[in-house]
Amino acid sequence: MTDRDPMPTPGGLADPMEPIAVSGRIDRVRAALAALDDDAHPDALVVTTGANLRWLTGFTGSAGTLAVGPGRVLLATDGRYRTQAAEQLAASGVADAVELCIGGVVAQREALAAATSGASAVGLEAGDVTWASARTWEAVLGPTPVVATLGLVEGLRVVKDPAEVARMERAAAIADAALGSVLHLLAGIGGGTTVTESEFAAALDHAMRLHGAEDRAFETIVASGENSAKPHARPGRRPIGTGDPVVVDFGATFDGYRSDMTRTFCVGGEPTGQLATVFAVVAAAQSAGVAAVAPGVAAGDVDKVCRDRIAEAGWADRFEHGTGHGVGLDIHEGPAVGAGSTAILLPGTVVTVEPGVYLPAVGGVRIEDTLVVTESGSRPLTRFPKEVAV
Amino acid sequence: MTDRDPMPTPGGLADPMEPIAVSGRIDRVRAALAALDDDAHPDALVVTTGANLRWLTGFTGSAGTLAVGPGRVLLATDGRYRTQAAEQLAASGVADAVELCIGGVVAQREALAAATSGASAVGLEAGDVTWASARTWEAVLGPTPVVATLGLVEGLRVVKDPAEVARMERAAAIADAALGSVLHLLAGIGGGTTVTESEFAAALDHAMRLHGAEDRAFETIVASGENSAKPHARPGRRPIGTGDPVVVDFGATFDGYRSDMTRTFCVGGEPTGQLATVFAVVAAAQSAGVAAVAPGVAAGDVDKVCRDRIAEAGWADRFEHGTGHGVGLDIHEGPAVGAGSTAILLPGTVVTVEPGVYLPAVGGVRIEDTLVVTESGSRPLTRFPKEVAV
Repeated sequence: MTDRDPMPTPGGLADPMEPIAVSGRIDRVRAALAALDDDAHPDALVVTTGANLRWLTGFTGSAGTLAVGPGRVLLATDGRYRTQAAEQLAASGVADAVELCIGGVVAQREALAAATSGASAVGLEAGDVTWASARTWEAVLGPTPVVATLGLVEGLRVVKDPAEVARMERAAAIADAALGSVLHLLAGIGGGTTVTESEFAAALDHAMRLHGAEDRAFETIVASGENSAKPHARPGRRPIGTGDPVVVDFGATFDGYRSDMTRTFCVGGEPTGQLATVFAVVAAAQSAGVAAVAPGVAAGDVDKVCRDRIAEAGWADRFEHGTGHGVGLDIHEGPAVGAGSTAILLPGTVVTVEPGVYLPAVGGVRIEDTLVVTESGSRPLTRFPKEVAV
Repeated sequence: MTDRDPMPTPGGLADPMEPIAVSGRIDRVRAALAALDDDAHPDALVVTTGANLRWLTGFTGSAGTLAVGPGRVLLATDGRYRTQAAEQLAASGVADAVELCIGGVVAQREALAAATSGASAVGLEAGDVTWASARTWEAVLGPTPVVATLGLVEGLRVVKDPAEVARMERAAAIADAALGSVLHLLAGIGGGTTVTESEFAAALDHAMRLHGAEDRAFETIVASGENSAKPHARPGRRPIGTGDPVVVDFGATFDGYRSDMTRTFCVGGEPTGQLATVFAVVAAAQSAGVAAVAPGVAAGDVDKVCRDRIAEAGWADRFEHGTGHGVGLDIHEGPAVGAGSTAILLPGTVVTVEPGVYLPAVGGVRIEDTLVVTESGSRPLTRFPKEVAV
């Protein structure tokens, strides 16, 4: 961009929130294990997935393993995290419930195996551990049988508690403010200034950090003109031009929790011709999808509402992705909001609604909000206006 | 930061380089398979690791699998990458050698299995595939035996060709320029301006993007004052103060290839007292380590040179990490530059040399360069001056 980017007064990281109390979650893991339909009857679990570890203990280090044994719970990590691990277990209210082992790889494995001793079988998170690690774990934990589990803790994470929703709401507010602070870059196009997709993405990422995000939630998508017709375009060297649709799909991370929002703008004024119809159809489909989000509704029905609207316009084959997904510590979590998804939305579930239509010769439009399911319906966490012209 | 950040004239993504010609690499994979000491004699490999896939085919999509069969080579991916995959195979000079399968998950698996048919056994990258995926692959590829391979393609990636080094050199130059453009934020401390660790990290990350990086190479470390004594600190809310040591460990990514550099500054002038000694010892150790990098040298000997210098100063137990690591498409690749590493450096190997000393009550200092091994010694890719006072 050729003009200086007038950033808002920067604040660095936003004020911290009180740590989340996680006690009670380990009992839910034990209950989920007991409910498994597995002949080996695993009554212990080795947790290797970082987000699951954080959710169960509050520990945020880059390396660590949790053993939930029949009688003991133990977190193993290395010397870099000696102080941090102890502090985070205490802050999360589980210092008494979770033993801590600090040591090298071998010492950690021995401590984790000891913490699961007496188990009928030990579950291992098969969607996270590598094949090589699984082989090591079978040797370490043997002769206790090791069984593959998939999505056990992830299933418990689908319904967020208020402290988690508060973080996602903060992340979404940061993202809203950041977008507002850089939109002038698009508004200035045609008036003597230029900005490429990658420059706009960089400005937006930087603005999120200045507004208090610890990071972006995922690689920001800025897709303009013909690139807008590619749902997964990466920001490139293309200068954004007058009349272009510009898909901006991005989010912020605050205290580990993520937001996800898409707005599609039209540079230089309201869209015309077929592009105007695309904008109108996607907006109507997205509104209808948002209105369908409520407790007791199957996620697949939210997808169907959006898909039907787009099909009525004749573009069923131009909406090639799912309507949405859960969000939380991961940017893509359960439940999937896609065709045939039977997951039932519950109060506290956080999902995106993001239909899109992509016409190669015309352009693409996607509109997305992140919503929390409430007792009576839903509440949007992302609140940036949906005005198109910029 | 309280003053406006005077960014350099932004350029967005830097000019692209000619695509890397990758033909010949697949033959090297077949030779590496033939050289394996495995009773099952795998003569096919399923490549799932993204960086390996890119290195072998030029394909950069987020989803894809390559089968190197006894007679065929096939890349499978989904419809999002139909155009991109064909273009990248052609640009990389392997459009004739690599068949392309675009389809859903089941169609992809069937095509990959067919491409390996007739194999004695199929290798699977056990350090990358999850345990759940390995079980699926065993079912898909059966009755052909599936064997675990570790580091097979990674071993071939250790020695870089000139086109790869050119990209890493560009990444390093971007990082150098970016650091130069934000250093005034540290120089201004005490003169009425303030900057926190996280603000400085955000400014540096943004500057790398404006100078042409497609992204940072890893999460930037900015650790000041007492935080500098923690080798793996994350940038936080701490305002950087006069007299503070500030460890800045960061890198840029250009066309997939990464740089890695650490500089430690002292805010407000030259360090004094014991901190001055720490700076001098680490600088001498790093210089000695750099001087030791040459073809034919064992990586462990580079580590020993650094470690001995620090031990002579009495701080052997204050240098707790390895001296360095390989860099390339991944930020951490082979060879490890640590105690006892027997890997022999060869022309084209790219490694970091990054000794550090961390004294809890005084502060920490780490100095790091990324070097390419040449025919006669080494050449630094990272070239930012090592002046301490700022």
